[in-house]
Amino acid sequence: MTTYQDYIATNKATFEAKLVDILRIPSISAQKDHKSDVLRAAQWFLQCFSELGLTAELISTSGHPLVYAESPAVPGAPVILVYGHYDVQPPEPLELWDSPPFEPNVHDGNVYARGASDDKGQFLTHVFAVESHLKTSPDALPFQIKFIMEGEEECGGEGIYEFLRSVEGKKKLACDCVLVSDTSMFAPGQPTITYGLRGILAVELFLTGPNRDLHSGTFGGCVFNPAIALTKILSQLIDENGVVQIPGFYDDVLPISERESAQFAMLPFNDNEFFEKIGLETGFGEVGFSTNERRWARPTLDINGMTAGYQGEGSKTIIPSSASAKLTCRLVPNQDPMKITESLREYLAQLIETLPGLSSGIAWNLEYQHGAPGMRLDLDASRFAPAMSLALEETFTRPPVFIREGGSIPIVADFHQILNAEALLVGWGQEDDATHSPNEKFSLTSFHRGIQASARFMAELAK
Amino acid sequence: MTTYQDYIATNKATFEAKLVDILRIPSISAQKDHKSDVLRAAQWFLQCFSELGLTAELISTSGHPLVYAESPAVPGAPVILVYGHYDVQPPEPLELWDSPPFEPNVHDGNVYARGASDDKGQFLTHVFAVESHLKTSPDALPFQIKFIMEGEEECGGEGIYEFLRSVEGKKKLACDCVLVSDTSMFAPGQPTITYGLRGILAVELFLTGPNRDLHSGTFGGCVFNPAIALTKILSQLIDENGVVQIPGFYDDVLPISERESAQFAMLPFNDNEFFEKIGLETGFGEVGFSTNERRWARPTLDINGMTAGYQGEGSKTIIPSSASAKLTCRLVPNQDPMKITESLREYLAQLIETLPGLSSGIAWNLEYQHGAPGMRLDLDASRFAPAMSLALEETFTRPPVFIREGGSIPIVADFHQILNAEALLVGWGQEDDATHSPNEKFSLTSFHRGIQASARFMAELAK
Repeated sequence: MTTYQDYIATNKATFEAKLVDILRIPSISAQKDHKSDVLRAAQWFLQCFSELGLTAELISTSGHPLVYAESPAVPGAPVILVYGHYDVQPPEPLELWDSPPFEPNVHDGNVYARGASDDKGQFLTHVFAVESHLKTSPDALPFQIKFIMEGEEECGGEGIYEFLRSVEGKKKLACDCVLVSDTSMFAPGQPTITYGLRGILAVELFLTGPNRDLHSGTFGGCVFNPAIALTKILSQLIDENGVVQIPGFYDDVLPISERESAQFAMLPFNDNEFFEKIGLETGFGEVGFSTNERRWARPTLDINGMTAGYQGEGSKTIIPSSASAKLTCRLVPNQDPMKITESLREYLAQLIETLPGLSSGIAWNLEYQHGAPGMRLDLDASRFAPAMSLALEETFTRPPVFIREGGSIPIVADFHQILNAEALLVGWGQEDDATHSPNEKFSLTSFHRGIQASARFMAELAK
Repeated sequence: MTTYQDYIATNKATFEAKLVDILRIPSISAQKDHKSDVLRAAQWFLQCFSELGLTAELISTSGHPLVYAESPAVPGAPVILVYGHYDVQPPEPLELWDSPPFEPNVHDGNVYARGASDDKGQFLTHVFAVESHLKTSPDALPFQIKFIMEGEEECGGEGIYEFLRSVEGKKKLACDCVLVSDTSMFAPGQPTITYGLRGILAVELFLTGPNRDLHSGTFGGCVFNPAIALTKILSQLIDENGVVQIPGFYDDVLPISERESAQFAMLPFNDNEFFEKIGLETGFGEVGFSTNERRWARPTLDINGMTAGYQGEGSKTIIPSSASAKLTCRLVPNQDPMKITESLREYLAQLIETLPGLSSGIAWNLEYQHGAPGMRLDLDASRFAPAMSLALEETFTRPPVFIREGGSIPIVADFHQILNAEALLVGWGQEDDATHSPNEKFSLTSFHRGIQASARFMAELAK
């Protein structure tokens, strides 16, 4: 009889072909023009689940649909919910890609495409792990597997949150453990369990001045320039050492314990190498914190994008009629995105009061886009972490490290709270996967090891 | 025998048709893709001059060509050089145009198109004025007319400056009076002679940080964000009251005399109406100066455009790898663009030293784009202003006002200096022509009156 291990070993090419196939779909959830592509990606996964014999369906939401699939319930055995997202980040700037973002390019052991690592490739490892058991087991699975995918992870949509809060959603998604692969390994080949994530708050600030772009000769000197106003406001959001200046911003931040700080310090991590990879000489941030403390356990404020006036070739002598900036805060556990939004709004109002020019008829508006709290798992009390730890150690021939991560998977905190389920974050990605940048990639070695480790974890559940 | 006045009166439709024809050519000098269109516009004018029987030619430059035309020399009579430009500003943002910028739309007594007022429509008035004399005079013109057009006025090209400094250029362009229509009337129907212009300095500031856009979750808090750095630098270029902070910026600024200040104050000008038209409640600028003093006789610094990170729909959680801003100063007579550039460069270096994050590997660069000094004519000593004043008064049935303007026509100061010629700036435009904005327009009444007044001025020269 074929074992699940044999099945995985003989189906490598098939798994890769399927991965390449889904990566061709530009499921960019933030861009309206790609709405039909987003739906196409959802349908691709629906068919994938159906072909495995799972009960699968699309679930409508206020935004892009959810994809849900499940195997039969097994009384007394654990229920595992695998979460992922079939949408991807916008690929811009396109000119910086070495190959087109939606024409997957396989070379040097990697597949290059938008969504390769974040999150299509990572998610599929669990689908193929389930496949390996279903195709080689004489009976049904000895536990219940559920899959839930959303199409709005990269655009902050509310669909999955609304579903999770509904009666139907709570029933369908009920589980003992949520398994998520949307994080990175701490180093290539180093299995990693992530027990903490930062939250997020995304807003956009708009300043609107004259009713049209003005000739800077005719009007320069006698009107207030919205772009100048924007720089005056934004420049006061963080100080020159990287400390966020919004009053009360750090009030609810939990201090980093000495135990955790020591654990961070023991990780194999080299500051120089880390910054060299991204073309910088050194890091930068709050004084008194290490790089990993800064990016995992301290909150931030960043400008993600800034727009004003003429941005084409050459010069254009105008005073822009408006200026705007996209901002995000990364939040740590215990910080409330709504409370921070209000503090930011009050602070902006204060800053704006100091600008006499604003009262000349410049309007401002802070648009809330989305927010989610951070989360931190209690590893000491975990039921499933030991099984995953064992599976990882056997597959990778070394024990996993336990880390936090600076990114946000807003739904994870909600799964934990609402479903009373343990969340297990086991990433197959690498730091240099360029997940929100041009030339995103995913290692095929990681892909295949992910399938093996996930299948091994499932085998452990059957015991 | 037909008079030149009769000719003008009976050829209105022909003049308008020719204007519409040239406005169809998108001669955007700042954009490389439009190079052939820029050439097409030059050739259109070349043919126009040839059809009048003038000796006409294209003159090659390092950039777009010049168009030159002349009538035979008349010993003892004045030589008038009409200057204009056949290139136009970029039309972006296109979505704000009510009709396409290069499909001229005639309605409500205006023609709407990019370049209608700035400067194709205004320039053509002098061409048709010459035509009216040539077609109705039994002999040659009793003075010599020369036309010189450049194709780089809107992009700060050097072609005409190089030509003007060459032996051939000085000979060809030698004249007693330079006539320029690239300015506005002080009010609709109010003939205006502009005796002062501001200079300009255009630069672009670039900050370059990490070698790619970074995931703001993975890297947020431990790297310096170039967009934040840009706001910190730009916010310190002018203070909250509109005073430029570059050390020495005002050192060479000549004070506004009490006589001139009083003349400005006597002009029919209403602050409320002026700002209401552009959707603002009040003006804004240096304390202690009137609106017209601020925009005509005081120097400025403006952000014309600002670019960083993701600017598309929705949010994208990145730390941008770079950030940049286009800046222009409007300078007043006696300020030197080169000196100001160096002061700005030194000031930026100082500001950047106060940002510890810059030393983490963020590079900065200030790119000089173009510059030109301001100019101011001595009306008391003018030989041609009385003739133009008379021509304007007869055509418009009211005497002209004498004003300065905030815009820059860099070549005018050069004509004055190098050719030792008097520069006469007589604009047919209107303040609301939206010359560097969407929906640029030109009044057809102004167009026809411009032709009449120019022809009347030429008739006066013959006396």
